[in-house]
Amino acid sequence: MEQVTILLTGGTILTMNDDLDVITNGALAIKDEKIVAMGPTEDITSRYQAQTTLDCSGQYILPGLVNAHTHVPMTLLRGMADDLRLDVWLMGYIMPVEREFVSPEFCQLGTRLACAEMIRAGVTSFADMYYFESDIARIVDEVGMRAMLCESILKFPTPDASTYEESLAYTQSFIEEWQGHPRITPTVAPHAPYSNTRETLEKSTALARDNNLPLMIHIAETQREVDDMKAERSMRVVNWVKEVGVLDVPIIAAHCVHIDEVEMRMLKASGASVAHCPSANLKLASGIAPVSQMLDLGLNVAIGTDGPASNNDLDMFEEMRLAALVAKVNPIDPTAVPAHTALTMATRNGAKALGLEGKVGVLASGMLADVIVIDAQTTHNTPHFDHNPQAVYSQLVYASKSHDVRHTICHGKFLMKDRQLTTLDEAAIAKEAAAFATEVGQFLSEREENTLSKLIAVGIDVERSESFEVQIKAILDDPSQIENLLSHEYVDVIRAVHYRQYDSYFIFNDAEGSRVRYREDDGIDSTGNVASVRMRLTYTSATKERAFHDTILLSHSRFIAPASHPLRFYEEYFKASEERQLQKERRRWHIHYQGTLFYVNLDRVTEPALDDLYIEIKARTWSQKDAENKADMIREMMAIIGVESTDVVHQDYLDMAKNEITG
Amino acid sequence: MEQVTILLTGGTILTMNDDLDVITNGALAIKDEKIVAMGPTEDITSRYQAQTTLDCSGQYILPGLVNAHTHVPMTLLRGMADDLRLDVWLMGYIMPVEREFVSPEFCQLGTRLACAEMIRAGVTSFADMYYFESDIARIVDEVGMRAMLCESILKFPTPDASTYEESLAYTQSFIEEWQGHPRITPTVAPHAPYSNTRETLEKSTALARDNNLPLMIHIAETQREVDDMKAERSMRVVNWVKEVGVLDVPIIAAHCVHIDEVEMRMLKASGASVAHCPSANLKLASGIAPVSQMLDLGLNVAIGTDGPASNNDLDMFEEMRLAALVAKVNPIDPTAVPAHTALTMATRNGAKALGLEGKVGVLASGMLADVIVIDAQTTHNTPHFDHNPQAVYSQLVYASKSHDVRHTICHGKFLMKDRQLTTLDEAAIAKEAAAFATEVGQFLSEREENTLSKLIAVGIDVERSESFEVQIKAILDDPSQIENLLSHEYVDVIRAVHYRQYDSYFIFNDAEGSRVRYREDDGIDSTGNVASVRMRLTYTSATKERAFHDTILLSHSRFIAPASHPLRFYEEYFKASEERQLQKERRRWHIHYQGTLFYVNLDRVTEPALDDLYIEIKARTWSQKDAENKADMIREMMAIIGVESTDVVHQDYLDMAKNEITG
Repeated sequence: MEQVTILLTGGTILTMNDDLDVITNGALAIKDEKIVAMGPTEDITSRYQAQTTLDCSGQYILPGLVNAHTHVPMTLLRGMADDLRLDVWLMGYIMPVEREFVSPEFCQLGTRLACAEMIRAGVTSFADMYYFESDIARIVDEVGMRAMLCESILKFPTPDASTYEESLAYTQSFIEEWQGHPRITPTVAPHAPYSNTRETLEKSTALARDNNLPLMIHIAETQREVDDMKAERSMRVVNWVKEVGVLDVPIIAAHCVHIDEVEMRMLKASGASVAHCPSANLKLASGIAPVSQMLDLGLNVAIGTDGPASNNDLDMFEEMRLAALVAKVNPIDPTAVPAHTALTMATRNGAKALGLEGKVGVLASGMLADVIVIDAQTTHNTPHFDHNPQAVYSQLVYASKSHDVRHTICHGKFLMKDRQLTTLDEAAIAKEAAAFATEVGQFLSEREENTLSKLIAVGIDVERSESFEVQIKAILDDPSQIENLLSHEYVDVIRAVHYRQYDSYFIFNDAEGSRVRYREDDGIDSTGNVASVRMRLTYTSATKERAFHDTILLSHSRFIAPASHPLRFYEEYFKASEERQLQKERRRWHIHYQGTLFYVNLDRVTEPALDDLYIEIKARTWSQKDAENKADMIREMMAIIGVESTDVVHQDYLDMAKNEITG
Repeated sequence: MEQVTILLTGGTILTMNDDLDVITNGALAIKDEKIVAMGPTEDITSRYQAQTTLDCSGQYILPGLVNAHTHVPMTLLRGMADDLRLDVWLMGYIMPVEREFVSPEFCQLGTRLACAEMIRAGVTSFADMYYFESDIARIVDEVGMRAMLCESILKFPTPDASTYEESLAYTQSFIEEWQGHPRITPTVAPHAPYSNTRETLEKSTALARDNNLPLMIHIAETQREVDDMKAERSMRVVNWVKEVGVLDVPIIAAHCVHIDEVEMRMLKASGASVAHCPSANLKLASGIAPVSQMLDLGLNVAIGTDGPASNNDLDMFEEMRLAALVAKVNPIDPTAVPAHTALTMATRNGAKALGLEGKVGVLASGMLADVIVIDAQTTHNTPHFDHNPQAVYSQLVYASKSHDVRHTICHGKFLMKDRQLTTLDEAAIAKEAAAFATEVGQFLSEREENTLSKLIAVGIDVERSESFEVQIKAILDDPSQIENLLSHEYVDVIRAVHYRQYDSYFIFNDAEGSRVRYREDDGIDSTGNVASVRMRLTYTSATKERAFHDTILLSHSRFIAPASHPLRFYEEYFKASEERQLQKERRRWHIHYQGTLFYVNLDRVTEPALDDLYIEIKARTWSQKDAENKADMIREMMAIIGVESTDVVHQDYLDMAKNEITG
């Protein structure tokens, strides 16, 4: 008799292999981290004896489920804000709370909570995308789960990096620290094409390629993302990531709600996997991914819960069921994604997506022992139609619940036995999570009285604008000087517009230094007539400035929304501490200076009237280095125009106008 | 101190009233079947003492959930056949098994299983549509749940009635037996417009109206139902049921996947409720009901699980969640059907649908005590954002699970206490259900070798045709005699066609007497040329015949499918005991005789050639009485044509042709 660690006997084994072999009255022997034998119970028990033998009669033995896309620390934000428009949810709630609260401790606690929930629901492996992934890895290591952990790269500042250079450096050292761990694959996640630049996509991919790793990225989650990509680059999202080289490594493409057949074929050819997240796609009204078509084309489709802030749980049973259900609607075909396919997506396909093909996701001798045992005898699982080989899959996908999981084994170790977790203290986690939720609640309650949330509460299509801007402003003695720049050999004028702008500023005496500007933009045509009128609200909080010589780097939150109500409404609604008016004539040019986009404004403030004419040159920027380069270019342009350093002004028009009045 | 039966203390009470009032640290006092007081714990406990007091701290107290549409005995068919096309699922599996197995015992056992599952999942009331509802009522009475029980009326024979007259009589006595029961509302369910005649709809409605009862009906579940209704009556489904008078009583309209705004307004004006069944609508690929629009129009929308053969469970938590999720997709609006609305649909709206408004569905003093208690402290329910008044609904709908229900109280009595059922023996139910499933499995396994299942296995769009037909066949001496009929004052010719038919019969030596006919129908135009070609397969089992004088009443199963493969394929596939060919020329007229539709065939069998010319007159029928009327009319028509009784033949062409060859 060979000695093994664990023997599971008398159960129905669903191997989830290519032939979907099922062993009734089967047994499985685990030694250390591996499955060493599997077969009829009588056969296995005659050859092996174990420290721990569990009778699994009336139970199903199957591979641990694989959650192919999630953001585990967001368990701590579960239920904080729901049933909101994507922009409002993300920019009004999730991002402000993340900016305020996401820390190594947050990520550790959230990961512990998520692991407890996933182990209870039969998940043994997951693929995560978040911040402070090194802290997440520490928890995963302790808890005993298996994970592909992907550090997020964005062109914006993130909770763990103020520039993308910092993010990449963090990710590099995160990979170095964890690569080679038996259960953890550390890698990179350029968050999405729209939240990255070509450069950050290229550098992220290089990091994965150099370390021989897969990477994760959000792809085509919303129709808007596709429309924006088409408008900007005249191509679809997958074509863009392919052009940039992202498909040179095996990727997990999360969501893929809006991809076409050509994109599916490109993904397949590159060895990519799709992580289908039906709950989140429904909850955020993104749409229903064409999973049936992807599978027909041979693309590897796995299933993910997405983050628990948009789901709101990490229950792969619900996700499998939903994957099977929603797949049938658009093709109007009840045979699309049958139960055995949904279960394959949640096991074998998930393993492949995480780069674990041949290691987990299928039960076979020699595979790593990621195994779950499910009670098939509960009332909602009654009765069983054993004559039908599909019935067991049907039961697991359409009727079973996560609570039916009795035991969860990962890497040969029990993480849950008889529904008791072995490596996590749920009461302690709940207590810490409750304390955290109270803090967040206080933060949000206080903010409820603040201006931005009020803007968001009434704004339709509130959009966050750039958070980083390099700019200069100066007095211009003679308006014709602008021609020095516009006609310069380094300059291409892309667009020239002429506005008359009527601004009303609502100024608040709050900690954020909030201002809301209601602006009427009258577009003036070449004959001097008003050709268009547009009303917009812009919220800004106190600007953080950093000077580079004469130019300044502005870093602030700015939210823009169409103003659908009359000015009077906003006056009454915001009840600002102070309201001020400003009118000006603005000529504006979008130019390329040596191939780089800048905005040039020539402004005359008419009410309250300022004597001088002003020139502004601005550019968006995403990194420290880029900001420095653009500041240099702005200085060169000022020299071309002939503006003296002494003419540079640092006040904004509102403050100048105030001085004019009060001074 | 007033003495009460049950005190629930220290919980968060979600009243689900119009203002969605929530009482934190609340208590609820139940005396006999009613809620007698509700308020802050301190207040209630100072005034009441109870036989049973339960500390509900960390738990939610809310109205019992209402499952507004289901077929409870079908728990016994859960998982028997899934992921199949609707026709194949229904006609190939569900209906044959129902014909074979549905009995009073089946309905009693299935109801016990269903009640156990629903009580575990926090359901206290349900609306059922099935057969043998009187037996279902007996179980509901014993178990202690609340239900609206609707006996099905169809134009076809059903498991509990061979004609609709029998069904109506059964329903009448069922209502008389159970009306006035404190928890049971016995009523009628004309199954659907397409499965009823105008007469059965009218008589069902009259039964409800005369007894002052609501009724239940399936409405517009599939697009096909809408298309068929438009083709047949040039109107939409709700318009038809309104015309027939069904909306004169308050109805539960189940499904309503394909109704337009006018139909919604008609339903609303009539006081109807919609039972939305998202799982079944997705699983059978029927579509997504426009629930958000219905709610915006003020229509009362409740939630149902539908039968567990198409779901596959009775879990209202899953159904609420899905109702909230799928509602957001088509309007592309994540704010559609927010969590509090989904929970309202599953409680207050459900109560209204069942005619229980003001009695259950809301927690208030004076209401009947249908109350559930839910554990909010499980890992997947962590953390809580108490600052946000919507968060509790969000948690219950998006994160909580049926397993979180701790106690279920109906009509003031515990049906589940600390997850132990008090009125049902689940082990005994499971044992009986297992025995039943084994029997069904044997029946289906044996059938696997039979012809119809083979047809279904390869047939796309297999359709069940009429099961009841009245017909006569006779030798016609002179083809011009047919003009006597066609030109008769009582006759309108609706359509005249001319076919050349090439039949291949596959004949099986099986118990069912199966035959499969492969027919090539060549449509012949007025110039004698082939204008169209159509290939079809028809399966028939041995025909039960009953003579009315010369006419015969045929009752058989007939399935028709387009033949998408060549004849050779079917020869190889079916491997019939015998194959025979038959060719004929057929002229066919669709006529109205005194306003009733009949089919008249004038046939000349050319291969093997028969000497005589034959006339056939046929009609579909649904009831004994109708069959007798039509037989009388057929005899009148034969007299008009001038056919003698001695010319009537009873053999079919195949047998005649065989005699011709062998005789």
